[in-house]
Amino acid sequence: MPDDPDTLQRRGLMFILSSPSGAGKTTIARRLLEHDGEIRMSVSVTTRPMRPGEVDGKDYIFVSQDTFDRMVEEEQFLEWAHVFGHSYGTPKAQVKAGLREGHDFLFDIDWQGTQQLYQKLETDVVRVFLLPPSIDELRRRLTGRGTDSADVIAGRMERARAEISHWDGYDYVVVNDDIDACFAKVEQILAAERMRRARQTGLIGFVRGLMKP
Amino acid sequence: MPDDPDTLQRRGLMFILSSPSGAGKTTIARRLLEHDGEIRMSVSVTTRPMRPGEVDGKDYIFVSQDTFDRMVEEEQFLEWAHVFGHSYGTPKAQVKAGLREGHDFLFDIDWQGTQQLYQKLETDVVRVFLLPPSIDELRRRLTGRGTDSADVIAGRMERARAEISHWDGYDYVVVNDDIDACFAKVEQILAAERMRRARQTGLIGFVRGLMKP
Repeated sequence: MPDDPDTLQRRGLMFILSSPSGAGKTTIARRLLEHDGEIRMSVSVTTRPMRPGEVDGKDYIFVSQDTFDRMVEEEQFLEWAHVFGHSYGTPKAQVKAGLREGHDFLFDIDWQGTQQLYQKLETDVVRVFLLPPSIDELRRRLTGRGTDSADVIAGRMERARAEISHWDGYDYVVVNDDIDACFAKVEQILAAERMRRARQTGLIGFVRGLMKP
Repeated sequence: MPDDPDTLQRRGLMFILSSPSGAGKTTIARRLLEHDGEIRMSVSVTTRPMRPGEVDGKDYIFVSQDTFDRMVEEEQFLEWAHVFGHSYGTPKAQVKAGLREGHDFLFDIDWQGTQQLYQKLETDVVRVFLLPPSIDELRRRLTGRGTDSADVIAGRMERARAEISHWDGYDYVVVNDDIDACFAKVEQILAAERMRRARQTGLIGFVRGLMKP
């Protein structure tokens, strides 16, 4: 008797969302976490001090710089980066165990983190890049409430362009001219990628059941 | 000024649906053609005689066996097969022109045709395999109205199993235990594949617009 086809075991995937700041990545990521019961963020390792209300092992895994450096040396990270004086890393063991159990992980990272993940676990990675609908709209979103200097805004525009220049290192590109439409597209990509034959590990047993004489 | 992001040029794709007979492929294919304005069947070349009501160049391109054999020799087909005494082929030039113009083509073919298409235009091909929900359900669907002999039914089951044995040569596998749910899944796969960066040829110009200083 084959398994119930609706509950076939599958391998999880690593869903990467990248975009320049101002293209809606944070909103889309938050909605995915709210609406999709099967996707989660991995818990990062960090050297930054714990803030009031944070829980070690839930918000972050808090470690000393020495420990972090040793973890880098022992290749315990899928990707890591140094940001504003602190180190952040994605622990390999946690994600690999989750993938085996069929959990999906959401990564809201830039092109450099994406390249690191892709080099480590290529077949588990789905890379989605969000683009702003136009340069004028991007400038409008990065200008904020008009309290920032022209220099600050120019710096943001430059960083946004630098990120956009890596759009061709992604599997999918979605232009975000409407947040609801963009979210629906991102959901379609995630749904389709879950149906990839290579991720549906339970199919082997299911097909064996169909083939029985 | 970049283009309107909703009308970016893209390259079409070849959407292949395969399944054993009795797994719903014909129903899914018909619904796709009815509901999706961007996908079409290619017009096949055939050596079988024209039937009353058929239009040459619309239903099929009708040719003599000599012409067909010459076309095979000149490698004018993406795939071809000999079925029940007649030859059928998919003309390469027609599909390649359509893909360039952004049209998608639906192929309702078996694993052998799928292999031929994949060898010719690998990056344009999306291969979807439909499976029946259980062996009992497959037998029920292949038994029909109970007017066929046990031998005929056994032959059908054997052919179905032979087709199923090629499930692992596909990009996506969908278990069809409910025709509406199955159709929704097939639509999600098609929508996602259209968003693949490599097919969105218009993005190059669009991003160039975003990058202008």
